[in-house]
Amino acid sequence: MARTIQSLERAAAVLRLLAGGERRLGLSDIASSMELPKGTAHGLLRTLQQEGFVEQDGATGKYQLGAELLRLGTSYLDVHELRSRALVWADDLARSSGESVYLGVLHQQGVLIVHHVFRPDNSRQVLEVGAMQPLHSTALGKVLSAFDPVAHSEAVDGERRRFTERTITALDEFEDVLELTRARGWAADVEETWEGLASIAAPIRDRRRMPVGAVGVTGAVERVCEDVAAAAGVVGAVPPGNASGAAAEVELRPLLVAAVRDCARAVSRDLGARRF
Amino acid sequence: MARTIQSLERAAAVLRLLAGGERRLGLSDIASSMELPKGTAHGLLRTLQQEGFVEQDGATGKYQLGAELLRLGTSYLDVHELRSRALVWADDLARSSGESVYLGVLHQQGVLIVHHVFRPDNSRQVLEVGAMQPLHSTALGKVLSAFDPVAHSEAVDGERRRFTERTITALDEFEDVLELTRARGWAADVEETWEGLASIAAPIRDRRRMPVGAVGVTGAVERVCEDVAAAAGVVGAVPPGNASGAAAEVELRPLLVAAVRDCARAVSRDLGARRF
Repeated sequence: MARTIQSLERAAAVLRLLAGGERRLGLSDIASSMELPKGTAHGLLRTLQQEGFVEQDGATGKYQLGAELLRLGTSYLDVHELRSRALVWADDLARSSGESVYLGVLHQQGVLIVHHVFRPDNSRQVLEVGAMQPLHSTALGKVLSAFDPVAHSEAVDGERRRFTERTITALDEFEDVLELTRARGWAADVEETWEGLASIAAPIRDRRRMPVGAVGVTGAVERVCEDVAAAAGVVGAVPPGNASGAAAEVELRPLLVAAVRDCARAVSRDLGARRF
Repeated sequence: MARTIQSLERAAAVLRLLAGGERRLGLSDIASSMELPKGTAHGLLRTLQQEGFVEQDGATGKYQLGAELLRLGTSYLDVHELRSRALVWADDLARSSGESVYLGVLHQQGVLIVHHVFRPDNSRQVLEVGAMQPLHSTALGKVLSAFDPVAHSEAVDGERRRFTERTITALDEFEDVLELTRARGWAADVEETWEGLASIAAPIRDRRRMPVGAVGVTGAVERVCEDVAAAAGVVGAVPPGNASGAAAEVELRPLLVAAVRDCARAVSRDLGARRF
């Protein structure tokens, strides 16, 4: 029976350290964060640098993530079956909805964005492929938490951080939202993660009807919600203990909901899921 | 003095193996490719899987690259100073030229694309961030080979594969092209890598005037070259031993050359390079 390899686990921890927070760290910072002797940390960094996973700044001597990670991350996308099946459908959804489209899968304690189609309006936008979204507050995350038991555990056991006044953090309210999501087959996020933004998402299933990802649109709350005034008015007006009403009280535009669900169904069928 | 760590080198080799060629491999394939006992390969894969660098397909048991690589690769881009300085200039270049823009840096034996702006015409395009381009045949690669001694060694020592009839593979012709590139400060690729496509690129320098990357446009040869008929006619008409004439004989559109060089200068200044 194969055991796991300690030096490899430590190397992965160094990369995670460099991917979060400071992002440019000296040898001493890394050694002390990892609670390792400097010599051990140096051996890890030296090998990671040799393999292109880490780069060292000539001027400051600080370490940061290396280019090989980008090359490998792109290769990961190239073999991603869900992503390749979804490309055309996601483009169509962006075109028909006029909003940006995101495709996400469960990764660790969040949603990893594996595809992002820009809002088709020629505005300057930042590509978010490879970014992580929280499970408990985003439409993509709620869909995964509602339909994927592993995502559900992560969302229930993990920290549910408050991003805005409307973020649902209490467990019973969160479970109510998931129940609603399962009942109607889609989820929404109305200013629960980002002020001014609303999202709608639906689950993608494979041939065994397993939830393998979620697809959704995100846009200004004024465009994604049915009644701007109502949406704006509800902020702060949700009675405590009824925050799960957030999505229920604010009407999402029904045609947008339909377009998102159509897209999710189309991708699911492409993955071999049956129509019924 | 820290030594490199064998298990880490082997893990990196497993990831490189999964990033090239087949991309979905069984344990036996991996063990035999790496010339390792199955137990050793299994230990590596098990740890890589636990850390999210590798995923195992439930149905076939085959291994492929994992989602954590995408997350880390995106974090690499987030701290990439050259890329963040170039974003706005690259957008402007795409807008003014009407062509797609690429920003590349030397990585291993090629050019790693760290930023890609789509051609602003609403057509369906595939994002190529994270992809590799060859050093000897692309405009970006020639610029890096001409100005960066490390890139030069890689291009001279490596295989110069023939992609089209116009690819320059002979060493003396390649060196002539690099000399021309140094003399005029920019490089071109007229159907030397892809049939029907031409590129123009210029070097980006940092505050020490070191070449840190290259920026360029790529588009249909009919748009990027001055005289379509001449460009088309030259294919196959370049006398043997004078293939370096390819770029010299086909006129690139001077305004496009100027726009690319303006962009490279602007990014260089943003990185602290002096104007003269």
